[in-house]
Amino acid sequence: MTAQKSVTRTDVARYAGVSSAVVSYVLNDGPKRVAPATRQRVLDAVALLGYRPNATARALSRGKVDMIGMIVPDIRNPYFSELVYAVDLAAHARGRSLLVINSDVRRSAAPNHLKGLVSQQFDGLVLADTLSPAETALIVRLNIPIVLINQFRGAEEFMSIGVDYFDGAREATEHLINRGHKKIAFIGGTNPALDPREHGWMEALTEAGLPLGRRYRAEFSSAGGYEAAMELAREPDRPTAVFIASDQLAIAASAAFHAAGLRIPEDIAVVSFDGTTESKYNWPPLTTMVQPVQAMADEAINRLIAGTPEPTFVEYPMKIVLRASSGD
Amino acid sequence: MTAQKSVTRTDVARYAGVSSAVVSYVLNDGPKRVAPATRQRVLDAVALLGYRPNATARALSRGKVDMIGMIVPDIRNPYFSELVYAVDLAAHARGRSLLVINSDVRRSAAPNHLKGLVSQQFDGLVLADTLSPAETALIVRLNIPIVLINQFRGAEEFMSIGVDYFDGAREATEHLINRGHKKIAFIGGTNPALDPREHGWMEALTEAGLPLGRRYRAEFSSAGGYEAAMELAREPDRPTAVFIASDQLAIAASAAFHAAGLRIPEDIAVVSFDGTTESKYNWPPLTTMVQPVQAMADEAINRLIAGTPEPTFVEYPMKIVLRASSGD
Repeated sequence: MTAQKSVTRTDVARYAGVSSAVVSYVLNDGPKRVAPATRQRVLDAVALLGYRPNATARALSRGKVDMIGMIVPDIRNPYFSELVYAVDLAAHARGRSLLVINSDVRRSAAPNHLKGLVSQQFDGLVLADTLSPAETALIVRLNIPIVLINQFRGAEEFMSIGVDYFDGAREATEHLINRGHKKIAFIGGTNPALDPREHGWMEALTEAGLPLGRRYRAEFSSAGGYEAAMELAREPDRPTAVFIASDQLAIAASAAFHAAGLRIPEDIAVVSFDGTTESKYNWPPLTTMVQPVQAMADEAINRLIAGTPEPTFVEYPMKIVLRASSGD
Repeated sequence: MTAQKSVTRTDVARYAGVSSAVVSYVLNDGPKRVAPATRQRVLDAVALLGYRPNATARALSRGKVDMIGMIVPDIRNPYFSELVYAVDLAAHARGRSLLVINSDVRRSAAPNHLKGLVSQQFDGLVLADTLSPAETALIVRLNIPIVLINQFRGAEEFMSIGVDYFDGAREATEHLINRGHKKIAFIGGTNPALDPREHGWMEALTEAGLPLGRRYRAEFSSAGGYEAAMELAREPDRPTAVFIASDQLAIAASAAFHAAGLRIPEDIAVVSFDGTTESKYNWPPLTTMVQPVQAMADEAINRLIAGTPEPTFVEYPMKIVLRASSGD
């Protein structure tokens, strides 16, 4: 591929016996028309010489490319694939293109990866992940407009968007309390210090004067959710309800409960978190706290387009959707 | 953002009272060290002037950027999100970055979108979609290395990768026949002419001397699968088994069967297609034809890296994984 890049438009023009402008007309479908035979001669020359239009040079001469980059930690998580889809819709509606980067396979190489991205002349970045200090410093240095999304809290340097995780988790747990449950467990991520969902669950139980149920800390993956639920199912003094910190975990947990012979919600009631499409097609359908994904996506793109966003934190309230997994 | 781009490194250097080289050292973290006070002066100037390193110019001077672009029709489909993940792993293992484009929100604008992509100086494209004649002509004209993946058949112009959809569908249906089913329906996409999965299902039934069951043509989405399965569940002369053309459809169909009071597999046995992680966490877990996603992803990236790939068709055989949805 390196060889191709050394072939210039002038080479193609010379080979085809036309002017450099004619090559450009053929490759860009205009603005002037080119006779079919000449056009074919140019295309043959392009193919033969392995010419590839120098895109970088074209981008330079054209100026703005209106590309927005988005970084997500794991595209296989249905919450992130829906978030990507929503940001894509928002970008498209405003005439922008979105290029998505899955970051978890290269977590350790992230700063370099970010540098590479910026060199792609993005007009802005949407980052659905946490930033290390090194990454933060890099973005400040490169001075590229950025909005953080899927955030637990605000950042000093950047505009951030998130839901009220704490309140959402509290409402989810309160719903289980209101349905009469007294032993309510929690399945969530491995880093409780960072996760307000665990705190919201604690707060609801404490306020209701109930003891804290067991906490199962899982890897954020289907396998993680399945294992945690299996552990819960085997408890001698089993909880009757569980609040689970994501739909991905809750879908896998449902399969584990079924496999362990537990009925949902009769033996174990479930309230989940995220509100993805997949929560609706789970069996039984999941009661879940809904993130207003499209509203957050629109906000992120609007802020990027308006210019370098101020370091504020926009926090969205959540809504519960009631379905069969909690007996609703 | 347009204003930012007119600020040059020379402007920053002048404002900070340093040489242009010093600005470069600060922004690139080297190669030479810069005294903390000077460094801060440069960063202040960068922030104040809204300077953004001219990435396009940097890319030009650096040459190769080792970026691969990937276009998928709908990232929300778990098959595509797993395919993206696999291609990302393959690219990363070979030191390349992958940028992903979700195409369905801009289907009508695809040729322009492709042009924009190529202007991002990609070293190659992986396209998990079908190409219109206009798109094909454009890619030929732009002369960018491309591999098509998720393909039913070969293309005249490009290297293509796919599974043996016909044989996979036949094996899936044969499995249901071998388990004693005689009324076997099919749920698939809306365009049967293009889909060898429907033909494979027909072939298996015909070979076994069984009548063709009903065909339900659904939109490729969770909602589509749910509706088709509901229609099936309401038939007076209901089939006892169904082959479903994707895991996404089959997961939603399972929810519909449960909601309609049908037991899987006792009332309706299900064999699916794709072999995504989510098929394993469905209830009941899905018997499904597995696409060797990582092998196909590795092949695609290897071909791109080796240079402009020849227009061949690499077709992978499928493997059945037996789970509870078919009574295994």
